[in-house]
Parts: sequence; structure tokens; C-alpha cells
Amino acid sequence: MSENIPHWLTKQASLSPHATALELEDGSRFTFYELMEQSQAFARKLANQGVVEGAKVGIFSTNCKGMVIAIHALSYLHAVAVLFNVRLTKKELAFQIEDADVAQILVKDDLEDHLRDMNLSTKVTPYSFVTKTEETSHQLASEIDLEDAFTIMYTSGTTGNPKGVVHTYGNHWWSATGSALNIGIHADDKWLAALPLFHIGGLSLLLKSVIYGMPVYLMEKFNVQKVHYAIMKCNVTIASVVTVMLQQLVDFLGEGEYPKAFRCMLLGGGPAPKGLLELSKAKQIPVFQSYGMTETSSQIVTLSPNDALRKLGSAGKPLFPAQLTIMDADQGGVGEIVVKGPMVTRGYYKNQYATTKALKEGWLSTGDLGRLDGEGFLYVVERRNDLIISGGENIYPSEIESVLSSMNGVKEVGVTGIEDAKWGQVPAAFIILDGPPISEAAIRQYAAENVAAFKIPKQIYFINELPRNASNKLLRNELYKLIP
Amino acid sequence: MSENIPHWLTKQASLSPHATALELEDGSRFTFYELMEQSQAFARKLANQGVVEGAKVGIFSTNCKGMVIAIHALSYLHAVAVLFNVRLTKKELAFQIEDADVAQILVKDDLEDHLRDMNLSTKVTPYSFVTKTEETSHQLASEIDLEDAFTIMYTSGTTGNPKGVVHTYGNHWWSATGSALNIGIHADDKWLAALPLFHIGGLSLLLKSVIYGMPVYLMEKFNVQKVHYAIMKCNVTIASVVTVMLQQLVDFLGEGEYPKAFRCMLLGGGPAPKGLLELSKAKQIPVFQSYGMTETSSQIVTLSPNDALRKLGSAGKPLFPAQLTIMDADQGGVGEIVVKGPMVTRGYYKNQYATTKALKEGWLSTGDLGRLDGEGFLYVVERRNDLIISGGENIYPSEIESVLSSMNGVKEVGVTGIEDAKWGQVPAAFIILDGPPISEAAIRQYAAENVAAFKIPKQIYFINELPRNASNKLLRNELYKLIP
Repeated sequence: MSENIPHWLTKQASLSPHATALELEDGSRFTFYELMEQSQAFARKLANQGVVEGAKVGIFSTNCKGMVIAIHALSYLHAVAVLFNVRLTKKELAFQIEDADVAQILVKDDLEDHLRDMNLSTKVTPYSFVTKTEETSHQLASEIDLEDAFTIMYTSGTTGNPKGVVHTYGNHWWSATGSALNIGIHADDKWLAALPLFHIGGLSLLLKSVIYGMPVYLMEKFNVQKVHYAIMKCNVTIASVVTVMLQQLVDFLGEGEYPKAFRCMLLGGGPAPKGLLELSKAKQIPVFQSYGMTETSSQIVTLSPNDALRKLGSAGKPLFPAQLTIMDADQGGVGEIVVKGPMVTRGYYKNQYATTKALKEGWLSTGDLGRLDGEGFLYVVERRNDLIISGGENIYPSEIESVLSSMNGVKEVGVTGIEDAKWGQVPAAFIILDGPPISEAAIRQYAAENVAAFKIPKQIYFINELPRNASNKLLRNELYKLIP
Repeated sequence: MSENIPHWLTKQASLSPHATALELEDGSRFTFYELMEQSQAFARKLANQGVVEGAKVGIFSTNCKGMVIAIHALSYLHAVAVLFNVRLTKKELAFQIEDADVAQILVKDDLEDHLRDMNLSTKVTPYSFVTKTEETSHQLASEIDLEDAFTIMYTSGTTGNPKGVVHTYGNHWWSATGSALNIGIHADDKWLAALPLFHIGGLSLLLKSVIYGMPVYLMEKFNVQKVHYAIMKCNVTIASVVTVMLQQLVDFLGEGEYPKAFRCMLLGGGPAPKGLLELSKAKQIPVFQSYGMTETSSQIVTLSPNDALRKLGSAGKPLFPAQLTIMDADQGGVGEIVVKGPMVTRGYYKNQYATTKALKEGWLSTGDLGRLDGEGFLYVVERRNDLIISGGENIYPSEIESVLSSMNGVKEVGVTGIEDAKWGQVPAAFIILDGPPISEAAIRQYAAENVAAFKIPKQIYFINELPRNASNKLLRNELYKLIP
């Protein structure tokens, strides 16, 4: 039996009409009531633009208030939001539009030209054009059926085409409540969103805002100075970041200290170097490591405050409604991470093959590698597609990155496997320095002191910038492009 | 599609093994890990005592650790706990046992004689007897299906026999998370339970404890001195009370003040006198009025902290996952309160008639009268018209009328609640005889044989005619005019 709840934005607007829902970098604020009114108006205009119940509507946008309103508006029409990464190539975008049966694309005004240049055959409607449309009298959703699909986000696997992860309202609901049971809900919470809303780590904050009745401090994109300022001066209590953002924030913080009220730096997007975690600990930054992916509607494993210091480097334990097991573990206990829970997607859009392959009786094969310690804490060893296999030995790039990052004068490191006639693959390191030059020999020497011989990078490249995706996640499989 | 989550006690024992789950008046404490171990052991012993999956197992107990363990143990066996009010008469109990298909009754040791005296035909097993049983190796539940029934509690309607309200795991889950979204979850929370666990207001705290990872301070029964002490000295942050308890606490507090950390006095069990609310406000007691019933798995409407002072006397707004409407309102906006949400029971045990009558497309007709103000705040005008709430216990006049009418020499009976300094309300009976005089004592004696002690009329008046309307319906709210 499916569960129905009141429409979450309407409900929060009823419970906390005057509470701030959204705060922008320019200092403007919008209450839940205002957000509801504007989203409902936008929905009635979209109806006039031909958006019907069940329609798949693309959104091509960086973070802004218009994007927030567009997302909520689609829920009022029982339509499905297909959230595109704005960095996609035309070819990638065309594939996703076709695959997701996208009827039209809503675009942030300043990105319209970008889409026009692509000559897509799908109808493209800028936010401002919708705003100017007349409202039709349309019966908007007053309830949400948790089984209904709400959003689709594409994710690349190690092989094949990207797959459209379908999130139901229930997936988002359980993600939000599961997280609340982990880190609590305080009346003064304000969550900083610098991650893009077209990624699950960003979108999930928007829905937590509506479900908790909590303001989100929305930034167009990550900027270390601006995030630092928001934490120091704007009463932010929680922020979601990925490793490279934390790295920059820690550097920027210097000898300073965050306010006491800042209670959670939720760290996602892959394993973090141990040195960074230790540095954060020394600076009393309340880092909560976590583990999750698009398919789990954001984090599904989080290190709770009680264990944050004792289990440094662990992603924690599965959230209250979630379960986790390690499949086909090797002698060291490392195997594939398999998870289950009501926040896990029911499957990929119109892709029964991939769905059946990934999901068995509710258990999702993540493709990632990890192990559990004696107390059941998860240590993510590697995202599987980054694994380097060298002469039969498994090498986890993150381990080498973590070691080299701790070397004096080294700022950031990316490691990937490159082909090798003898070993199949060998590790190559891409290094950004933040001091005087360091010799390759010195780096190899440092590595040799810390890791097994076969893990010492065979090639070392000094570079200026690492390839990262829109949420600033290191793209290891693009490192090879930096080879001169 | 039904949702499965990990077994909640096992899960919390994994997340917070060393955290306190249960604190008793004698100062003893039990962690979630201990509670899990003991509940699982108890479950394996119960399996040896013949408890099978799906069995309905009665629990006849006042609040104690054994009761907590028994309830959790039944969940590990996928059995259903039927929670009896220990004040029931033999006749009432026999009805509920029969109606709920109870296979055996677990009884708190010091109440065993009470049950033995009743000569019930159902197997009665004291807690200590179970404890001495050998454990069978039994596969315990590792997951909870939210659609499964977990508990049954009987509630009397205005007419007919009491009905067994079935609570699914999902009902309890949504009640707990709905409440969390209202009053928040703080790491230092400790909830005082002085309400009986055989009532929904008590039981719900036990489940919140397990879902939030929060200690419950469990008292065998309400005692003003002990509750005062617990709030003042034992770091209690939230307490659930009914009006009569709050009254006593306020008196006892005198010129004192509760600690700052005490953040919520959750008040249920019927409308509270405005004077009491104002007095509480003056003493800075953070009273949260609420409205709910067995069918809604505890409160479904609560006045949130932001509005507590501004809307004194209101029960608040429906919890985040809940909806509320007023049906057939009169000119003053007063009508029947109708509610919907995933915490609302799916129905009464084996009573399709009553279920169909009460539930229509998920909407529950409460039978209570209320109105909404311009901002959507609920004011409960009257509980089920004639319902008497005495010390937090629901008393239905029709039940007492029905019993007394069956007495030889009694022609007609009308029962209503009259004010009582201690209990809030107590029942008074207005009787027309059709034979020789009967003494008040004889009537009380007859009542005592048929209904629980708290239902025995405190005042008895012999009269010549009952107030009735044109269609001869008894006007209970005019009975008080007959008091000499």
C-alpha cells in the first residue's frame, strides 16, 4: 500500500509560513509561503506551456532561485524533473534528452544561448519566458504519493551509456528523514548548498529544507571565500562539501576557527585523504564523512558525531533505515559494497537490463569496494572504476593520493592507472605543488617510505589543475589526458 | 510496494551500542545493546513457549523493564502484541482476549494473581517464567516490513463493543518521525514516560527511543514528586503528560523553575483548561498542546514551539505527514475532525464494519468536534461530544449507561462527566428506577463487577426523567442541570 502525504511545500508553507526557506548570496530571503506561491504560479504557467501530468521536463540550470521554483513547480503538476549537468557535451545531452523522453527543457536565462548553439530539436523554454506566460487555472497536486517518480538524474557507469536514475518522492523523503535521525534536527539549522542542484548532493538539500522547515543558503557555485564567509557570518550550521572544497576551506581558515554553532561539515564525494581529516580535526571542524551516490538519493552511510574522532577515515554506518553488506570479500575483508533501504532507487529509467543487474531484492550493487571493521564501520576502499590492477595486485588510487598529499609542498594529487606492457597497469601521479619544486625522485622516495613498492607511481606529472566534475569530484579517468 | 527497514532495535544497537536506551526510577540504566540482547534472548525463550509468527500475544503489565523487553521480543518473532489496560474487569478482558484471538498472555509477575483470580481460559505466562525457559535456536527478524501489524490496543467507541486498533510498524514509524519533524531531535534528549505503555501515548515513547537513539526515563506510574524530581535532577528534556498530571506538576513546582534544558512538556489527553495553560506559561513551562488518539498512533496534531504562546488553547497543526479537515461544519465553523496520514491505523482488528465506517479513502472520522482558525490552527471543541476524560483515561458514557441499564430495577440511565479537581472529569450517573429503591452502594457494586474502577460513577442521582431532544435522543450535556 503506497503512502500519501500532503504536498511537502504546501505543508511547510502551512506549518511555517514566515520561516525562511531560501537565502541567496545577495542576502535576499524567501519564506516557505513565498516559495509556495511562486512555485504554484510557475506551475500554472508551465501547464499553459504544455507540461502535463507525468511529462518528463528537463532542467538545464546552475543553482538559482528560478531552478528551485522550477523543481517545486513540476511536483505540483505531477511531472518529472530531469536534471542535466550543465557541463554535458551536445552528444551527451542529446542522449539523455532522447533516453528520458524529455518533452521540453527549462533553461536558466543566461544558459539559453548555450543550448541554442546545440541545435537541439527539443523545445527549450527559459525561466523568464515561463514567468511571462499567463497562468491557467489548473488543479495542482495537494498530495504526494511516495511511490511516484519525481526526478531523474543520469549517472555514468564503468561501461555502456549513462543511466537515468529515477528517484521517487519516497526516495527523497527517506533520505531526508534518515539523515535527520543521524545528525538531528535543530530549530536554528541552516544548511549551505554549494553543490549543484543537478547532482543529488545538492538537490537533497532542497528537499530537506522543505521537509525540515529549514533555510537553505544557496550558492550558485562553490567559492572558498564565499563559503567561508557564509559559515563565519551567516549563521550556517551545516554545509555539504566534497574533498577538494574541504581542502580549500581548511587552507582558507588558517589559524581561525568556525563559530560554535557550525555543527556539521558533511563530506561526500569519495574517500578523503587522512591528512586532511586529521588537519580538520586539529582545527575542530566537525567533519562528518559520508558515502552515497545518485542511486541512494545522497548519503546512505554517515559517520555519526559520537564516532567522528574515533573512526577517522571511516564513512560510518548505514543510516537508520538502511542496510549494508560486503559481498565477495577478499582475505582482507574488502569486497563490493551492497546496500538496501527505502532511499535506494527502484531502478534506471526504461533500462530493465541495468536495473536487474544492479538491484536484487532491493539490494543495490554499488560497484564500490569497501570493508567493515569489527564494530561495523565502513571504510570505502575505492570507487571500483578507479581501481588499478597491477600485476594482479589491487591498487587503490586514493591510498597513494592520501600519502602524497601529506608531503610538504604538495597541494593536491590525483592518481590513475596507465597501461604498462609488463604489469598491465601501473599507477601514475598528477601533482599540484604549493611551494618550491620537488624532484620526482624525492616523491618516489617519500612514497617508498609509506606504501608497498608496487604502489609507487611509475610516472609523475606536475600540473596546475586536476580534472573535476561539476560537484568538484576528482575525475580520475580523465587524468590521462594531462599526460604531455 | 511495502518498505522494509532493518529491525529498529538491532539497528539502534548497531549505531549506538553504548548509548542509554532505558533509565529506571531506581537509577539503573540499560544500553541499546543490552536491550537488544535481552529482547532477543526473551524472544528465543518465547519461541520455546510456543509463540509463533503472527501470533497475537497479550501483555498485561504496568510499566517496567520486563514489559519493554516483552514488546521488543514479540517484534523479533513477527508476533503481535495485544496491550491490555490493567484496570479492565474480567468481563472486559475476556472480551478483548477472545476478540483479538490472543494465544497467550504475558504478565508482569506481581499481577499474576490478579489474572489467576479471573480464571481465564487463556494461557498466562509471567515474565519470570519466560526468563527461566531455555532458548530455542530461532531465526529472529532482521528486518521490519512497515506494512506488518505490530500492536493492537482496544478503544471503546460511542456504541457497541470496544474495537481493536491495529498499529502497523509503519504507523509507529511515521508517528515517531512526524513528531521529530515537529519538535526536532537533539543529541541530549531524554524523554520521560509516566504514561502507561499499554496506552498509545506511552508505547509511542518506547518506539521513539529506539528510532531516535534516545533514552526513555521509564516510571511505573505517574507520581508528581517523582516526575518533578526527574525533570529537576535527571536531565529529562521532554515529558509526555495528560492534563491532570500537568495540573499537579504546576502546583508542585510552586515558585520554582524547571531547568533550561527541559524543552517540551507534551500535553495530550483532551482539551486543557485555559487557566492551566496560562499558569504554565507564566511559569515558563514549555507546554506543547497536542491532539491524537489510539487510531492515530499518538498525537497527530501538535502546537509547535513557534506558536505555543500565540495560540494558547489550540492543539496546533497536523504533523508534517498528516492532513486534517473539518466536516459538516456549523455556522461557527465547528464540525467533525477528520484526519489522514501514514500514522493513521489501517483499521480495527477483524471488524470490517467499524473500519469501513471510520475510514474512507484513508480519512479517519474521529468523532471529535473542532474548528480551524484563520491560520489553520485546530481548536478541539469537544472530544466525541460526550467522551469523559478522567486522568487521561477515556470513558464513554454509553458504556456505563449500557451496563447500569441492565441492572434489575433500573429503567433508564444517562451518564455525563462532571468536573473534578483531581481527575479533570469523573463520571456521574442519572438513573430512573422502575421498581423499589436501590442504594447507591448497590449500583456502585454492580458497576464494579462490570467496568474498570475508573469508570464507576462518582456521583449517582435518582431522577424522574432524562433530557431528550425531539427525536428522543439523550442530551447528555444537559444532565448537569439535574444536579440538585
